[in-house]
Amino acid sequence: MGQVNDLLNAKSVLSWDARVMMPRGGAETRAKQVATLSVLARDTLVADETRRLLDAAQAEIQSKDADSVEATVCAQVREALDYHDRIPAELIRRRTEMGSIGQEIWAEARAKDDFAMFAPLLADTVALNREMAEHIGYAEHPYDALMYRFEPGETVASLQPLFGRLREALRPLLQTVMSRTAPDVEFLRRPFPVDEQLAFGRTMAQRLGYDLDRGRLDTTVHPFEVSFTRNDVRITSRTNENWMPMCLFGCLHEAGHALYEQNCDPAFTRTPLATDLVGLYAVAGVSFGAHESQSRLFENHVGRSRAFWEANFGTARDAFPEQLADVDAEAFWRGVNRVAPGLIRVEADELSYDFHIMLRVDIEAGLIDGSLKVEDLPEIWNARIRQDLGLEVPNNRMGVLQDVHWSSGQIGTFCNYTIGNVMAGQLYEAATKDADVAAGVAAADYGPLLGWMVKNVHQHGRRYERNELLRRATGRTLDPEPYIAQLTQKYSEIYGI
Amino acid sequence: MGQVNDLLNAKSVLSWDARVMMPRGGAETRAKQVATLSVLARDTLVADETRRLLDAAQAEIQSKDADSVEATVCAQVREALDYHDRIPAELIRRRTEMGSIGQEIWAEARAKDDFAMFAPLLADTVALNREMAEHIGYAEHPYDALMYRFEPGETVASLQPLFGRLREALRPLLQTVMSRTAPDVEFLRRPFPVDEQLAFGRTMAQRLGYDLDRGRLDTTVHPFEVSFTRNDVRITSRTNENWMPMCLFGCLHEAGHALYEQNCDPAFTRTPLATDLVGLYAVAGVSFGAHESQSRLFENHVGRSRAFWEANFGTARDAFPEQLADVDAEAFWRGVNRVAPGLIRVEADELSYDFHIMLRVDIEAGLIDGSLKVEDLPEIWNARIRQDLGLEVPNNRMGVLQDVHWSSGQIGTFCNYTIGNVMAGQLYEAATKDADVAAGVAAADYGPLLGWMVKNVHQHGRRYERNELLRRATGRTLDPEPYIAQLTQKYSEIYGI
Repeated sequence: MGQVNDLLNAKSVLSWDARVMMPRGGAETRAKQVATLSVLARDTLVADETRRLLDAAQAEIQSKDADSVEATVCAQVREALDYHDRIPAELIRRRTEMGSIGQEIWAEARAKDDFAMFAPLLADTVALNREMAEHIGYAEHPYDALMYRFEPGETVASLQPLFGRLREALRPLLQTVMSRTAPDVEFLRRPFPVDEQLAFGRTMAQRLGYDLDRGRLDTTVHPFEVSFTRNDVRITSRTNENWMPMCLFGCLHEAGHALYEQNCDPAFTRTPLATDLVGLYAVAGVSFGAHESQSRLFENHVGRSRAFWEANFGTARDAFPEQLADVDAEAFWRGVNRVAPGLIRVEADELSYDFHIMLRVDIEAGLIDGSLKVEDLPEIWNARIRQDLGLEVPNNRMGVLQDVHWSSGQIGTFCNYTIGNVMAGQLYEAATKDADVAAGVAAADYGPLLGWMVKNVHQHGRRYERNELLRRATGRTLDPEPYIAQLTQKYSEIYGI
Repeated sequence: MGQVNDLLNAKSVLSWDARVMMPRGGAETRAKQVATLSVLARDTLVADETRRLLDAAQAEIQSKDADSVEATVCAQVREALDYHDRIPAELIRRRTEMGSIGQEIWAEARAKDDFAMFAPLLADTVALNREMAEHIGYAEHPYDALMYRFEPGETVASLQPLFGRLREALRPLLQTVMSRTAPDVEFLRRPFPVDEQLAFGRTMAQRLGYDLDRGRLDTTVHPFEVSFTRNDVRITSRTNENWMPMCLFGCLHEAGHALYEQNCDPAFTRTPLATDLVGLYAVAGVSFGAHESQSRLFENHVGRSRAFWEANFGTARDAFPEQLADVDAEAFWRGVNRVAPGLIRVEADELSYDFHIMLRVDIEAGLIDGSLKVEDLPEIWNARIRQDLGLEVPNNRMGVLQDVHWSSGQIGTFCNYTIGNVMAGQLYEAATKDADVAAGVAAADYGPLLGWMVKNVHQHGRRYERNELLRRATGRTLDPEPYIAQLTQKYSEIYGI
């Protein structure tokens, strides 16, 4: 399992390098190198030797509790073997091929605003994922099988009430907010030199607890966090000279992800408790949603809070004395929380983001169970955007063709964003019930909050399933009420509701 | 073989990253990831499946000439399998362990100037390498077996006349040079901002033909070149604000290495003709010495030539208008060719460098055949430096303890530097017999020279053994006379001999 972890970490290094450092000529042979590492990681995992060692290990630890580290590791390896055994190699090969041609077709279709050009590929992707779901198996809905790789335990049945409650609570809140006067953001559009933005983002990420001796910050087109064990956890951001929140909150978001990885129990290094053996990805976070909870918590609950800017605005003004000369902490805090629903998911504000996600999850589930047809997507998409956000979609480029995801051959990857938001709210509520955490948060000292997250979330790596982790940390499984209450409170304050 | 190449390239990416980008915390787990890739590359190479495929391939190509690409590839794979089969895995494990503890012991011994502290490790390293040599096998001298991995075909017997001739010719030349007035170099010690030095080095590397769309330049402590297929060939340099030649000639040297890799036949990508299956390293250059010939040729024959600076001094002065205000092309050319023998190999000038190498090779061969004893090394070292360079070695830190090499568990790695110098001279002489190349060189147009190198050296990758490559390119095997003649001519001109 150490070797599997090494191979997957090596693959992550090659992918980081490809996105951050690689000269453009390297793309073709790099793809082959990454593919070889993928194949060898899977081959090493499913090898007879693994099964032999696993049998021996399980025989040896029979006397241990089922929730001991040893028994958990063995159970997870067994589960991953079962998962991979169910998926024919030929299907993986077809999905890889589809992914490798898909991106180009999608990019051209999007550039030409031509949904009909993309539709056959999407139909094939749906058919292939449906086939994949049948092999993986499911109790109720084929989409459940596809979510398993990203958000194990989550099902269409569990998402429906969650999404219903979010729509019910957030739609009127968003409508009210949109009827009020928005805070000023013009000062955020002044020219902020990009190198200084990065330096400031780095400083703020460190202030959250991100350890640069075990990490680094670079720029890239599509920001991400990636770890090569807890000892090397890197983040990226992007800059816009005339929109300073992009770089800053990119840094805080990815630093939130990074904190999860940097604070996993060191004893779990190079073990299955820091390796996603189902998704074949070297990561300590237990699900994509759990991971997103940490990025959103540190980006939004911390980085967009009034207390944070009361404490840190001085640093911002030192970094940008001219740009922020006529701004104060209060105005800065209000500005970075402005709600402005738009058509593009990756640019969405905190309050409208979930509507983008719920739309995509509903469409994916409908495509997979056959209740929606590919050719109807533009109409469905545009109607939902009108209904949820009150916006007209002028073309498919700004609508159904905007995301890269479906061109990669993957379906089932979206729900974690909203689960992350909800989970962040729930964990934040539970953490701030602790007197030290609450006092720290009030005084913009986030050490106690990070300590609570390390103790209740980060250190456990992949030891507990997401809902079990939540139950241990908060006393209950996924619950949207804290998140809804927090959004309602913050935006009522900012918008004078 | 494609997989083996992918794994070795992945290992190279991880090593580049470790030396150029990695935060310090990542070192421990990165070493494990690199080790896993090494083990899997070797396992994949020596697997039964490889032997089965090789047998099948050899049966299939029986009708091909022995020097066809197909037959050459098969023969090389067979030779690599034979090599690895001869070395017990347990010995490799011991050498890896020795290397991993050795560096720390060496660093401490060097810091404390305590040879006795390092001596036991060196004795163990010698014993282990002697054991390795017995397994690898040799006709005359055990050191030949150790050089095989780096400079196949080279032997103690072939090096002795080469070294004898170099000493005979270069010692009096060096002595005469040292008796004359040295060119002024004070202007090279003015403050040159490091970012501008790097930009200038990048420009000059591009002027040699280095393709930055398939490469990149970074800074590091110990500069190197590394390739991840011909499509991604990276160089590094280092800067000293008060010694501008360091960065500049570092860039030209590594660019010379890079040209070899960037210009290998694209058809050889991911094949054994771009993979050192004996040394388990993804490289297209056929030997370490052949590789060094290209770095030294572009650094010295091109980059330190009068014609180069007559053509490029204007660019230098545009980059550094203040620092070079009172300097002209002639003075610049003379300055960057100043001879100043010193105690430290990595800082040696062109004319004294080979003496450092010959000393180390003679010591290694003597240690391996038992004619030298570890405890006598300081005395032997200091006597040779006195004899060859006329310098007194004040301590072992500046003498026998200066190099990292022996702490890595490796012996046999040094001769390629001098072979590279000699080979560069020989190839340069042959190339400039071509009228177009000669006209180009005279006019500082290096396109024809590079074209000749691509045609006669680079494109062939590892297809021909080094001496066969030399024979095809120059009509004869390794010959020091052109190199000696070129050094004599250049330094006679600069020093008015």
